[in-house]
Amino acid sequence: MREIKTVRWDDETDSILLIDQTRLPHSYRSIRCRTVKRLITAIHRLEVRGAPALGVAGAYGVALAALTIHEKDFIRYLDKVTIAAHAIGDARPTAVNLSWGVQRVLSRVYLADSIEEAQALSLTEACTIASEDAAACHAIGKNGAALIGSGSTILTHCNAGALACSEWGTALGIVRSAVQTGKEVRVIACETRPLMQGARLTAWELKRDGIEVTVIPDSAAAHMMRKGEIDCVIVGADRITPDAVFNKVGTYMHAVCAHAHSLPFYVAAPLSTFDPMHTEEEIVIEERDRDEVAFYGSYATVPERVPVRNPAFDATPLTLISSIITESGIIRPPLDWDSIGPIRRII
Amino acid sequence: MREIKTVRWDDETDSILLIDQTRLPHSYRSIRCRTVKRLITAIHRLEVRGAPALGVAGAYGVALAALTIHEKDFIRYLDKVTIAAHAIGDARPTAVNLSWGVQRVLSRVYLADSIEEAQALSLTEACTIASEDAAACHAIGKNGAALIGSGSTILTHCNAGALACSEWGTALGIVRSAVQTGKEVRVIACETRPLMQGARLTAWELKRDGIEVTVIPDSAAAHMMRKGEIDCVIVGADRITPDAVFNKVGTYMHAVCAHAHSLPFYVAAPLSTFDPMHTEEEIVIEERDRDEVAFYGSYATVPERVPVRNPAFDATPLTLISSIITESGIIRPPLDWDSIGPIRRII
Repeated sequence: MREIKTVRWDDETDSILLIDQTRLPHSYRSIRCRTVKRLITAIHRLEVRGAPALGVAGAYGVALAALTIHEKDFIRYLDKVTIAAHAIGDARPTAVNLSWGVQRVLSRVYLADSIEEAQALSLTEACTIASEDAAACHAIGKNGAALIGSGSTILTHCNAGALACSEWGTALGIVRSAVQTGKEVRVIACETRPLMQGARLTAWELKRDGIEVTVIPDSAAAHMMRKGEIDCVIVGADRITPDAVFNKVGTYMHAVCAHAHSLPFYVAAPLSTFDPMHTEEEIVIEERDRDEVAFYGSYATVPERVPVRNPAFDATPLTLISSIITESGIIRPPLDWDSIGPIRRII
Repeated sequence: MREIKTVRWDDETDSILLIDQTRLPHSYRSIRCRTVKRLITAIHRLEVRGAPALGVAGAYGVALAALTIHEKDFIRYLDKVTIAAHAIGDARPTAVNLSWGVQRVLSRVYLADSIEEAQALSLTEACTIASEDAAACHAIGKNGAALIGSGSTILTHCNAGALACSEWGTALGIVRSAVQTGKEVRVIACETRPLMQGARLTAWELKRDGIEVTVIPDSAAAHMMRKGEIDCVIVGADRITPDAVFNKVGTYMHAVCAHAHSLPFYVAAPLSTFDPMHTEEEIVIEERDRDEVAFYGSYATVPERVPVRNPAFDATPLTLISSIITESGIIRPPLDWDSIGPIRRII
């Protein structure tokens, strides 16, 4: 497998390097964020996306704030870091990992007694989060691979791969780990409208690693299930509440159809994706710009003045999910929040 | 409602005029087919598409063959018309209406005793088919409108509108008829990957008629059903066998999800769409070019050398369908082939 480092810290220049996911598969290049403002722009533009990657990016973002804010008074410094941290955490509302990463680093800043200590603690914590995310993905991969029979065809939606994490991936981490243990697996990647993360990113990642992948329109998934061409579904998650999994819009539809065809429907996510503090109805589903659906480059597919709905995510009730695969093991709904290990509380 | 004549015969020049559906919504213009070859190209390119429209186009195509083939010997003339008719009928495999329209006109040609009579009979029959299709759409509209409550939000997929028929539409004919009788209805149009007939054509038609329409990615339909934002689904059909409805890929997914949400799922189609002679497993689902999915204009969304599956249609078992709305009335599965009126036999 060829290494992909989606989000990393550059010690020499104190900046964050992100693989620009809007340019793939055409060009594979990095963006350097030297300021919090640039990082927030990158999050808005989806140059970095994917729940675990957003957690790592948010964590590095607070470290970046701690290192770049010019303020000598420690109390005013803490205020400014806090404001910057909240701005990063609010850049996208649905994936819980972003605010989780931000809060985790911010809580270290508050433990410091000086600006220098705050800078050191925040960067150390952000690096720890990145390492833990990589380790979590490998553990998810190992745990999930045990569920996958050799010869399986796995349907996935959007990109829950190395590009959605610090490396390896969650759903695609399971695919990679299965391949690594000698299993033959092939992946059906739903293209994932409107921004084509399945076609552009999942197909690119898997092709690069020599794993067999075929792209289909999202609407062909149920047809392929009915034809017996899918053995299971594995997706990532942006937030898991005690009643629902939030993930890229279309996940719910695949879950309903998998259930109708008695196919296992697996969610692969690190514990940082769990949100025990909220229920589905409290979570805002981000509604993104009309133009993402209505245009392709400069080409309009929707007539002028016709409205568009563009929810970025949907919620799948846990009753439709066979298992959630975490770094701590495999859990089955109904979720017992006390038994699934150290669920990190955000607040 | 503003008239749309999707397929029509031009008496002055003995040619077929088609609204070019590949140019909408950017330009609304016609293509003139003076030869059978050009008509077949138009069918391949989807300049004309939609099952009932293909039936009318196929019918006019045989008349065009009868009028343009230069052959004085009557037997050789009949052979050449037959060869041309089969070429038209084979241009696309899934929609039964195309071969139905072709066969119906061809059977009139065989009744003739001279070339002149064959020309006259074929053109008369093709014009009759076009008139009957228009009348059927209006009757489907009227029959279906009775099922739609005022205030309803109707989900539709692809385009089963005036642009898919000679005029008025099947699924959208029901919407139009409901509006005409004073009901308030709004339409959620699934954009319909890969060729965006929902975004481009359905939205264009309805906007033009002042009917409220919102476009969504196909993958958001189930999410909206779950949120209670859809009251029923109405789609068209390309072929109805005794066990399944063939329609644009994605129809099956919507049917599974509508069933899971206890929403009515209606199919609107003229009797020319019924195929009592075959079962699902005998029908070829057209697999179209990779590039329809992998490219948007010159922009590649799928990495090079990654394969794509692009089935144009899927099959929905009748068990998932609440009613089929025809010009002869509303029928509910299980279909009783003897009781639904004069089903025209193709062969």
